[in-house]
Amino acid sequence: MSEQKSTNIILFSGDYDKAMAGYIIANGAAAYDHKVTIFHTFWGLNALRKDENVHVKKGLMDKMFGKMMPRGADKLGLSNMHFAGIGPKMIKNVMKKHNATSLPDLIEMAKMQDINLVACQMTVDLLGFKREELMDGIEYAGVAAYLADAENGNVNLFI
Amino acid sequence: MSEQKSTNIILFSGDYDKAMAGYIIANGAAAYDHKVTIFHTFWGLNALRKDENVHVKKGLMDKMFGKMMPRGADKLGLSNMHFAGIGPKMIKNVMKKHNATSLPDLIEMAKMQDINLVACQMTVDLLGFKREELMDGIEYAGVAAYLADAENGNVNLFI
Amino acid sequence: MSEQKSTNIILFSGDYDKAMAGYIIANGAAAYDHKVTIFHTFWGLNALRKDENVHVKKGLMDKMFGKMMPRGADKLGLSNMHFAGIGPKMIKNVMKKHNATSLPDLIEMAKMQDINLVACQMTVDLLGFKREELMDGIEYAGVAAYLADAENGNVNLFI
Repeated sequence: MSEQKSTNIILFSGDYDKAMAGYIIANGAAAYDHKVTIFHTFWGLNALRKDENVHVKKGLMDKMFGKMMPRGADKLGLSNMHFAGIGPKMIKNVMKKHNATSLPDLIEMAKMQDINLVACQMTVDLLGFKREELMDGIEYAGVAAYLADAENGNVNLFI
Repeated sequence: MSEQKSTNIILFSGDYDKAMAGYIIANGAAAYDHKVTIFHTFWGLNALRKDENVHVKKGLMDKMFGKMMPRGADKLGLSNMHFAGIGPKMIKNVMKKHNATSLPDLIEMAKMQDINLVACQMTVDLLGFKREELMDGIEYAGVAAYLADAENGNVNLFI
Repeated sequence: MSEQKSTNIILFSGDYDKAMAGYIIANGAAAYDHKVTIFHTFWGLNALRKDENVHVKKGLMDKMFGKMMPRGADKLGLSNMHFAGIGPKMIKNVMKKHNATSLPDLIEMAKMQDINLVACQMTVDLLGFKREELMDGIEYAGVAAYLADAENGNVNLFI
């Protein structure tokens, strides 16, 4: 009897391209029957934000963070800052031309494949997010939960 | 009977220093008899470009990408943008002074050690590269091939 | 009899937030009885610098590097350059407000938990550091030592 393989991705980055890479690997692994978890921490949490403005009560600094950070997967920037000209728009155009799957669609696909989307509770507290501002159906956990999965994992990546 | 160990590196970054780190680990692992694969995706693909201008037929946007991105390992920039003064040139000078191996030489060494250099087919399509523009002797594959290697791998890294 | 699990982190980045993430995972893993090693390479070495100015004899270029790079964990910058307004100061304020552990404290905690803090000897040579400039009680090693740990590791991450 063979045990189910597992893939555990820490998504630290809030960059559109890095998040795409993470979600492509995750969806691939789920298709190959891995148990897959994406643990969103620090800037990676922005991929899980709802794109509409959710009205919640917040202190001044939490409000500022909320305003300054991108609201949802579609708003993320690029990791590669060397070429001012290749902006997220140009990448998105190219992706459309090639029928590549957008990040919001990759996240939808991940949900349909029962990939565990986890928000790092420490980051949620630190950046002052309220649960209403993040996608429904995600989990909240900390480093202990991550380690419990990853210590038996096959493919562990920090992105 | 012990199985051969394996190291599987996803090189996502197109930064000179990060690519160096990846190739140093890869060459080290090959020297310790690991089966080693470097899967070049997104900006990491630039490390596999030929440094001369190869004439191929392309659409306008593909041509633009080709012009804007660095042509080959020797042209990559640095990941660390905090210190405007430490440019790739200064790093390369320091490396020469210390007889450290340059990135193009590390790639040559990787080929001689039979490390699998893989270009992500999706990225090749997305950025509009033609095979003539990339190094000879590399493979083209997707996330399924990566996962087949990595799920049994010992050292899996995303760089 | 079960073997001790192990976590092996390559800290390549010299960013405050990425180093924090690495040290949080490392301290968590140590608390769960993993054997933990953090291998500091390239810019990650700056986290191990003493914060005072140590007088050592150096050539001009080594002196320049020493001046240009942050002196110790508390001086590191942020990875996320998209929002000019979210500086390390703002993050540190938020962390203080939430009683989150600062990076220097996370490093102290790592020492108390007997996490192996390793400085990459190649980087030390390349950037012209003297051992007096780095923290006491750390080890110096190369890629071979890293691989010997990581090839039997459970959680291997490149940060």
